[in-house]
Order: sequence, then structure tokens, then C-alpha cells
Amino acid sequence: MATESAGPDGGTKPKVTITAIAQEAGVSVPTVSRVVNGRSDVSPETRARVEDLLRLHGYRRRQAAPGDRAALVDLVFNDLDSPWAVEIIRGVEEIAHQDGVGTVVSAIHGRAGSTRQWMKNLRARASDGVILVTSALEPVVHAELRRLNVPIVVVDPAGSPALDGPAAPTVGATNWAGGLAATEHLLSLGHRRIGFIAGPPRLLCSRARLDGYRAALEAAGVPFDQALVAQGDFYHESGFHGCDQLMASPTPPTAVFASSDQMALGAIEALRRRGLRVPEDVSVVGFDDLPEVSWSAPPLTTVRQPLADMGKVAARTVLRQARGEEIDSPRVELATQLMIRASTAPPTAP
Amino acid sequence: MATESAGPDGGTKPKVTITAIAQEAGVSVPTVSRVVNGRSDVSPETRARVEDLLRLHGYRRRQAAPGDRAALVDLVFNDLDSPWAVEIIRGVEEIAHQDGVGTVVSAIHGRAGSTRQWMKNLRARASDGVILVTSALEPVVHAELRRLNVPIVVVDPAGSPALDGPAAPTVGATNWAGGLAATEHLLSLGHRRIGFIAGPPRLLCSRARLDGYRAALEAAGVPFDQALVAQGDFYHESGFHGCDQLMASPTPPTAVFASSDQMALGAIEALRRRGLRVPEDVSVVGFDDLPEVSWSAPPLTTVRQPLADMGKVAARTVLRQARGEEIDSPRVELATQLMIRASTAPPTAP
Repeated sequence: MATESAGPDGGTKPKVTITAIAQEAGVSVPTVSRVVNGRSDVSPETRARVEDLLRLHGYRRRQAAPGDRAALVDLVFNDLDSPWAVEIIRGVEEIAHQDGVGTVVSAIHGRAGSTRQWMKNLRARASDGVILVTSALEPVVHAELRRLNVPIVVVDPAGSPALDGPAAPTVGATNWAGGLAATEHLLSLGHRRIGFIAGPPRLLCSRARLDGYRAALEAAGVPFDQALVAQGDFYHESGFHGCDQLMASPTPPTAVFASSDQMALGAIEALRRRGLRVPEDVSVVGFDDLPEVSWSAPPLTTVRQPLADMGKVAARTVLRQARGEEIDSPRVELATQLMIRASTAPPTAP
Repeated sequence: MATESAGPDGGTKPKVTITAIAQEAGVSVPTVSRVVNGRSDVSPETRARVEDLLRLHGYRRRQAAPGDRAALVDLVFNDLDSPWAVEIIRGVEEIAHQDGVGTVVSAIHGRAGSTRQWMKNLRARASDGVILVTSALEPVVHAELRRLNVPIVVVDPAGSPALDGPAAPTVGATNWAGGLAATEHLLSLGHRRIGFIAGPPRLLCSRARLDGYRAALEAAGVPFDQALVAQGDFYHESGFHGCDQLMASPTPPTAVFASSDQMALGAIEALRRRGLRVPEDVSVVGFDDLPEVSWSAPPLTTVRQPLADMGKVAARTVLRQARGEEIDSPRVELATQLMIRASTAPPTAP
């Protein structure tokens, strides 16, 4: 067990030893060691006192060092139910693997029991860092992680960057610019009635994509029409129903911008069942650029989110923090890119 | 560090202590401990002698025990480049999570350097078990894992079940029965010229699916025609080219059975570009039932492989082995199921 230390800001401070912590806490060295190693045979009061001191002195719980036990990072999803997840895993694993660090993948299903179990496991395996995807954890768990002095990075932050207390670094994509680019593409093809299928409103990325869509419309002098916005949840089914609702209007859109690829595929299915062709009758744009959408029928025009790269940046950031190094920036947004394929075309003259 | 022990057959034997191993090896207790913990500061000769004794006495390197460091299983893929992978991860993680075990996901890209790095990491983190997907490792690595006395389970075994030495348990799907069911479905619709896009011939599952296709044809009295078989590699691109090749024949098939979902989506794109409609002009069947193919255009008829369940069985098996318990069966094949959707229909009368 190395005794490297670093301040909470990522800068280095003089090293602190377990012995010094034990003296200050008035407990034995093995007791401090038990707390550091996440063992359960320490009274809650002693644990709290020792952890406070460890945190105060910026003691790093475990270091990847030659001959030491290998390091681990925890990668936490709400659910492992989307091809989206494998892209993030791929990026994180690639960087961690190079550093000899294992990537522990967990799903906590937004359930308190599952989160408690995960926290217990995390403490026991003395993970060197935690990458949360779409801020899978409640503020109370963030606080607990900070108490353990485990570095955290949030990929695709769900809400406002300011968590309770000093904020964790975040890695996202330029969602607003992506929403703008997709809408500008449809406008440039001549579309004026453009439907939008939104993601969950509690997520920052959903709101940014919607705002990008609005901004493009406004810049083109096309009035924003709330009737052209359907509410979705990023999954296929909601894209299907959202598109169906938009097409049921007396003045249906000639193009639909679904703010996730899965919703775009759902929208294409809704159009297919109505006997409408994509892109001849209705254009469809997605958001994500999952590998399989270049093989949808037709291949999908979409906004590329560099998901694997987001995983890589998150892994680099959390590993730098774990080593007590400075990080480049606490807020990173990687550029999105419009991928024009076969699902968009000019509107048919009425 | 617990000192539970178990025979290589999974039965329990009297416990052996580190002290006893140290005595027998003629080394100090800390040296044995260093070997057990995968540290590098032990000479290769001493390491080999101690590891031989650990293996001989069936010493388990690490046990998940209350208050002990949390357990880990390693889940190893060749590549993390398919939505297929996330299904396996989901199943393994669910079972491991319940047991307080972390799932360390790795990709070794079939490269020796990457495998060596992974082996080094595995040893250092003292993983309790290894789940290999599509037998990502060379026989020499299997031998090394056995030397470390780490339980192994192979999901979707690549080759013949007999590895060099005592075989690892395997978890697969009824690939032959799946190939048979898909072909019988097309035959029952009235198709007689049925194309087949095969997976990599080195994989057992590819060969089983092809044999199931042949068996169904033979049972229906339809002669097998090698010209109707295209070679693929399970990825989209090969399904596209394979289907294109089949359709270029003077007597093209009226149905195509692609032995992976990704190849089926590639096949549909090849047909779309030729101006052929699915299923009106050509029927298409896939294999896997990835979540997204119920949303392809049209929704794909396919053979469901219970990938998440395969991950669950693999996790249960490796954790039972790690605890020194008996496993139910060293060879498990989970049932496949034909999912009939909108990509298959009777052939059009000529």
C-alpha cells in the first residue's frame, strides 16, 4: 500500500503516512489500515474519525505501483441496456488497460438497494476512481464517495454541473451545437415543418439538444411551434410513439429530428407502418451515431457523439486524479459531428 | 486473506495454510504471501515452486468473505465492438453484483501484447475467476491460468471443447437447433432457394448454424447447394457483400438466412440498394436477436440467443467454482428461440 497523497484539487501535498494518521486519530496502525482497505471490522465512530483525517490529509487509498496489487476503476451505469454503453466501456477499457488498471463495470438501475450494495463493493475493493455515466448516483452517494476520497468523473452529466459541494469533473459532448447542426441540415434541404422528439427533460443533454434545435429555427426565421415537439425518453418505443403523434397532426412535419438514434429507429418504424418512405416522404435525423445506424434501412443521418472518446477522456481524467496529478480541465465537451447518410432529402413538392 | 481450499474437481479438501505451503517450499511466509498476492518481487524460480504447491493443495488465491477485500471476476472479450457484448456484460454483472463481486471487463483484441498485459493485471488483482467470451485466449494462456489455479468458464466456445488438458466449463446456445428452426421457418413459407451467410469457420457456433441449415434442407428434400452459401465474419459489412454476391447469381435466392443479426442488417442494406423490398421480394432471417433488431426496417425475424442468460450462467458457474462448490454441468447449451417478425413472408409467385 503506497502512501502517496494529493490535495482535493489534484495538486500534490507532502506525503502522509498511515502511522501519522493513526497517531492523530489515537488508534492503532492496523486499525487505520483496516479502514483504508475497506474492511468492516472497525466501529463506525472510529471509521468516521479515521476517514475524516485521511480526507483532511488527502491520503490516497491505493496507488497503482509496480509490484503492488493492480489498480481498479469503477465504471457505473444506471442500466446496461443500450449499445450506447458498450461504446463508453470500450473507450474507458482501452485507456485503463494500457495503464494496467482493471475496469469494473456496474449497473445500479437507479435503485437504492443496488446502489448501497455497489458502495459496499466499491469500498471493499478499494477502487482508485469512479466514472459515473449520466450521473447514475444521488447527491448523498456523491457525498459518501467524497468522504472516501475516491476521485470521481461524470460522463454526460445529468444535471447542473454544481453537485453538492466541490463539483466532480465532467466529460460530455457539444449537445447544443449538435442539435443546431442537425436542424440546420434539415433547413438547408428546404424543410420548414421539422418535428423534434425530445429526451428526458431532467437530463442536461436533452435540454441542450432541444435548445440547439430552437436556435437553428430562430436563426432561419422559422417560428418555434410547441406542437412539433414530442416527448421521448431516448428509447426506441418513445421514438415510435412520438413520431406517430407528430404525423397524426393535420399539418404533419416533413422531417423529424429524433434526439437519440434509438428514437430515430423507432420513428422510422412508425413511418414505415404508415406507408411513408424515408427519406422520400419524410426525412429523419438521429443523435449518437451508434455503429449499427450506418446499417439501418436507410442508413441514418445523425449527429455523432464521440462516445468511446468520451470514455477515454473520462478514464484519463480519473486516473490522473488518482495519481494526484493536475487535470487539464474540470469540464470537457467533445465536438459532435453531423454524419449525412441516406435518411434525409429535400421535401417533396406538395 | 482466507485460506479456503478446494480440489481442482470443485470438491472441498482439508484447508491448507500459507504457513504449511511456506514450510513445504522452504521459503518464508511473506514470500508465499507475495506470490499469492501476485506481487512481482519474487524470483521466477521461487514463484514457480510456490505456485506448483498452491495448485497441488488446491489453495484458493482469494475468497470473498465478510470484511475481506471484495471479490472480482474477469470478463474477457476479443473486442468490445458489438451490441452483442453489452448483453453478455449485463448478465454477468447482474449475478456478480448480487454476490458483491466486481466485474472487470477487458478486451484483448487477439493481440499477444495485450494478452500479456491482461495476464499481468489479472495476477496482480488476484481475480477470483475468469469468463472468456468466444475463447479469446490462446491455449498457452489457458495453461497459464490453470497454473494460477483461477477458475475459467468459456462463453460461446470457439473451438472443440477439449482444450489442452482438463477442459474448462462452457456456456453456449443451441446453435444447431437455431439454424434448423430458422431454415424450417423459411421452408414452411414456401422458399426453396434459401441463401446462407456463414460466420467465421474457425468458430464452433458458425459450423453448428450451417449444419442446422443443411439438416433442415435435407429433411425437406431440398438439395444443399454450395453456391447458395456466402462466407461472412458476423459483422455488417460481410453480410452486405455476402448478400450482394448471392443476389448476383442468375438464379438468386428468394430468402437469405444470415447467421448473425449484424450480417442480416448488412444483407437488408444490400437488397435495398438493389431496389428489392424485404420481405416482399426477398425474406431475411438473422441470428442473435439483439434488442435493436425489433426496430430495424422491417423488424427482423431472427433466432434468439439468450445472451444475457448465457452471461448469468457463466457468472454463476465461475463463482461456484471459486467457492470450491460443485458445478451443475461442465457443458451448458441454452435454448435458442425463433422470433418471427416482419422480414419474412412467402415467396412471390414468379
